[in-house]
Amino acid sequence: MNVRLPQPADFSAPPSPAQLQRWSDADAALRPARLAALRARARSEGVDAVLLTAHADARYFSGICFGPNDEPTAGVSGWLLISSDAFAIFADSRYTVQARREATLATPLDPGSDPGAAIAAWATANGVRKLAADPGAIRHAVWERIVAAGSGIELVPAKGWSAELRAVKDATEIERIAAACAVADRALAALLPKIVDGATEAELAWLLERGMREGGAEALAFDVAALAGGNAALPHGNPGARPFKNGEVALFDFGAQVAGYRSDMTRTLFVGSASDDDLALYQRVLDGQQAAISALRSAAERGDAALPSGREADNITRAAMAGAPGIYEHGLGHGIGLQTHEAPSLSRGASERPLPSPTVFSVEPGIYLEDRIGIRIEDLVAIDLAGRSLRTLTLFPSAPLITG
Amino acid sequence: MNVRLPQPADFSAPPSPAQLQRWSDADAALRPARLAALRARARSEGVDAVLLTAHADARYFSGICFGPNDEPTAGVSGWLLISSDAFAIFADSRYTVQARREATLATPLDPGSDPGAAIAAWATANGVRKLAADPGAIRHAVWERIVAAGSGIELVPAKGWSAELRAVKDATEIERIAAACAVADRALAALLPKIVDGATEAELAWLLERGMREGGAEALAFDVAALAGGNAALPHGNPGARPFKNGEVALFDFGAQVAGYRSDMTRTLFVGSASDDDLALYQRVLDGQQAAISALRSAAERGDAALPSGREADNITRAAMAGAPGIYEHGLGHGIGLQTHEAPSLSRGASERPLPSPTVFSVEPGIYLEDRIGIRIEDLVAIDLAGRSLRTLTLFPSAPLITG
Repeated sequence: MNVRLPQPADFSAPPSPAQLQRWSDADAALRPARLAALRARARSEGVDAVLLTAHADARYFSGICFGPNDEPTAGVSGWLLISSDAFAIFADSRYTVQARREATLATPLDPGSDPGAAIAAWATANGVRKLAADPGAIRHAVWERIVAAGSGIELVPAKGWSAELRAVKDATEIERIAAACAVADRALAALLPKIVDGATEAELAWLLERGMREGGAEALAFDVAALAGGNAALPHGNPGARPFKNGEVALFDFGAQVAGYRSDMTRTLFVGSASDDDLALYQRVLDGQQAAISALRSAAERGDAALPSGREADNITRAAMAGAPGIYEHGLGHGIGLQTHEAPSLSRGASERPLPSPTVFSVEPGIYLEDRIGIRIEDLVAIDLAGRSLRTLTLFPSAPLITG
Repeated sequence: MNVRLPQPADFSAPPSPAQLQRWSDADAALRPARLAALRARARSEGVDAVLLTAHADARYFSGICFGPNDEPTAGVSGWLLISSDAFAIFADSRYTVQARREATLATPLDPGSDPGAAIAAWATANGVRKLAADPGAIRHAVWERIVAAGSGIELVPAKGWSAELRAVKDATEIERIAAACAVADRALAALLPKIVDGATEAELAWLLERGMREGGAEALAFDVAALAGGNAALPHGNPGARPFKNGEVALFDFGAQVAGYRSDMTRTLFVGSASDDDLALYQRVLDGQQAAISALRSAAERGDAALPSGREADNITRAAMAGAPGIYEHGLGHGIGLQTHEAPSLSRGASERPLPSPTVFSVEPGIYLEDRIGIRIEDLVAIDLAGRSLRTLTLFPSAPLITG
């Protein structure tokens, strides 16, 4: 079945320092427009300012870059306060130098030990009466403190304003996601000779991580999942001492981060051999995935008035897989960029509004038979309605592949 | 100055599978007592149940182990609800199998898309009227939803109950922290020949990470900091393309995770040579660190009625360093265990109550001269008042060391 196994050299090399600099310059040039778009949203919603707390937002709007594990220790550093004419970034003493260097448009503000009071003080000083914030992101104690400390400040629940802006990707963002896909594609191609009977999940997870980290990834997008046989039926499994075995599947779900942007891919390979039954299941998943991708491609290439919704895309795959056993309970896909999971969502519960454009998301149906087998195929696609195109960014082949 | 550079073989080998199994068995045996202690606290505070949301608590009380990067995607999975006679763990469909396998004392509960309502429903079904939760950990929307959905349920703000229990370490927890220290010690010893003029921060950060990951660490405790020369004055710097240079310092702040428990150490090495001025600064930091450690050791060995407080310990080091330039603004140290930063705190703002016992914490004073040099020395110590002992768990020497 395998005419030729994919080779690392089939995929793009990691970006050069000059390319990284061009991307950094592009971000700096785009940042004022991003701020303007958020301010326009605030104005149209009748609020005076917006509070943002995610590190992805901090990077997108201000340029400050936290490490992948900075979240737990950064505390409230990296929070943004944006009004029509002011822009502040929280940076405690550990981050003030970094904020001065990286968040050049923003004014560093020390949150001290009472960030709620610091926010209220900033609002008062900047004439902000209505402040938009996401109650699903802000901790209860901070929310209450802002209200208590800021006499007359109204906190307006707001959700997804920045996520909606970030869902629409510019060309240089898509280039970076494609570069992260190539790092992952290449690492899996290099791993193929090691995916043999007896290798353990934990060993191969580490080799795949090491391949990405030494092959252009500044970080992982998330922990590598390397799951053998029946373990592949667990949507979230931690790689352990379980060995891969001839005739079973080897499922790898992994992603890289390049210049801040992330990839996410899943391949389910067969170790040594594959039964006809398992190959038939694989084909059901692949057909289901291609059904949604084809429909989205047609809509884009025809130049429809609007793209299908994320809910419709999920429906298309479920309809194509009807009658198969163990059809996925999770969503069909998710947007990706500075975060591994971001807007838009493609799932049964997703919005019925058309997908944004241009945007990038995963398409990842699966079949899971508990304790026996799990098969998932995940690719990232970039869709551009105005450009009448859909492009698959994951270039590692998705046809069934037997290793070893 | 260097009689002999530390070698990897100077430090303990990674734990064997049998040792890992003994630790896992010890946890299982201790878990009922941990639950009983939390229930006693709830009773003494007059509440009917406790809500816990940290993954460290999930592991400590229930046994479920999330991966280091599970936090962002796990959503509300791993939240615990503990009353006098019920014990539930939130596990959405991605985690139900794992919860059944690992959290054997707890009942899995699907949070669905409305965790606040699920908590309220559980409380009602279990006769819980007063539910303790940490407003600094729960998001505002969830807090409000519990109150709105649970007619008559009172949310009682509670902070640090589990952290206080976890601050007191049993012998097998200290063994695991010591094992994580040894993994880090060994990795740094193996790195020494690479710390030479021209090597970059990012290269050495990766080699140190790789050394830990291939030398017994299941994960990092946090991102490696590898900082050259003036960059070492940044308390939180991301390793970049800056090269180490002869005559400058190389600061490494890093830690490993072994069987769930973490280490944290900092060494500031001199590349090639060291000026007398810089060696004198180094000695000021080392003397300051040893002042606190000696005072704590004396208190433990004498069998004082109580240990000094975290605030006193910090004061002792600051007094010993008085007059030195650029004395650290951060705290002297922090507890460590399942989390890199946990109770107790040793700092100017720390509690004036005696330190708990037995416990493990870092002692990490520093001197930072912006753009010129940063020096920090960080060791973990285990103190046991009843056992009349203080033991340094970080065994890599802290005397000044010149590489290359």
